[in-house]
Amino acid sequence: MATDIPDIVIGRLPIYLRELTRLAEEGEQTTTSSHELGQRLGISSAQIRKDLSHFGEFGKQGTGYHIGYLVEQLSDILRLSSEWDVAVVGAGFLGHALANFNGFLDRGFRIACIFDNDPRKVGETMGGLIVLPDSDLEKVIKRKQIKVAILAIPPHVAQQMTDRLVKAGVKALLSYAPIHLTVPEGVQVSYSDPVIQLQRMTYYL
Amino acid sequence: MATDIPDIVIGRLPIYLRELTRLAEEGEQTTTSSHELGQRLGISSAQIRKDLSHFGEFGKQGTGYHIGYLVEQLSDILRLSSEWDVAVVGAGFLGHALANFNGFLDRGFRIACIFDNDPRKVGETMGGLIVLPDSDLEKVIKRKQIKVAILAIPPHVAQQMTDRLVKAGVKALLSYAPIHLTVPEGVQVSYSDPVIQLQRMTYYL
Repeated sequence: MATDIPDIVIGRLPIYLRELTRLAEEGEQTTTSSHELGQRLGISSAQIRKDLSHFGEFGKQGTGYHIGYLVEQLSDILRLSSEWDVAVVGAGFLGHALANFNGFLDRGFRIACIFDNDPRKVGETMGGLIVLPDSDLEKVIKRKQIKVAILAIPPHVAQQMTDRLVKAGVKALLSYAPIHLTVPEGVQVSYSDPVIQLQRMTYYL
Repeated sequence: MATDIPDIVIGRLPIYLRELTRLAEEGEQTTTSSHELGQRLGISSAQIRKDLSHFGEFGKQGTGYHIGYLVEQLSDILRLSSEWDVAVVGAGFLGHALANFNGFLDRGFRIACIFDNDPRKVGETMGGLIVLPDSDLEKVIKRKQIKVAILAIPPHVAQQMTDRLVKAGVKALLSYAPIHLTVPEGVQVSYSDPVIQLQRMTYYL
């Protein structure tokens, strides 16, 4: 792994990968350029070239990038060559939406299990998975060696569930609970709170 | 509005505001410090002081920040003094989760209407709102003068719905569709795609 690459650069790679995959699916071309990619993403071509140059030489002057090759390389860089099993905690509407989200397909992740503490939800089927009781959390996560989890639960239980997940071996956590979580060094956390995103935009209105 | 403030600074203000509101709700203290706030958020106190200094002098050496006052000031800066009406497009599981999300309460936003193109969903009640047919979108958004919308629909219809929303007057759009959207200048877009967030983390695993 190349080191000392700014996290903001790492954060753009998945966006490049998603657009390149879309280009590949459209199937009309086998190569693209930083200019075309930039136009499609509203990012400058210089930025894209600079970001990619951290990881090597992917394009050729004049012919641009081979889409399939760049998809493969970015997938490797982002450790997506084999699929990550993901645990979803919370089987409410959001958990249900996640279990049914098509966007995981072929993008490196697979929802492997879903938990809830509500006995009325346990046993229900969501996205082809049976909702498990949260008392099984540690057992299942350890057995399946799950490293990635998504929290789709209310804020007042988010920290205690985080502690349990981390103790069971989870190293990357995406939380939809609108609260800051404390995790030990070496564990990644990412947040999705619609209000935080909306407030950032209203500043400009 | 202070100008030329980096967007990344603006992006942290909602996080400060959320934590300050939490502190206020805990009700155990009327003042806080950049040190305490930083500890609770995993952000350096110097960063917090620097971010806030873009907007004025909010704290006093020795006594720190008055929580209630800072909440008020940040709310003003982020244009949250009056509530923004929000349109949700898509009444699937995700739309349902948004309509029922407690996190909007007292944070400057109110889901005002929810639309779907599926006649089986139209007329259903979600979070106290009746799902409207998407043919009413323009009429309702114009009448209610809605400036903020959330897209909870599949990617293949996201761009056309964006175009309709923007034409009807929407200026800030949060999209859960995993696709880049093109909008005219002056319209803000923010994205939430769990895979993009997960991929950014797996790089570090």
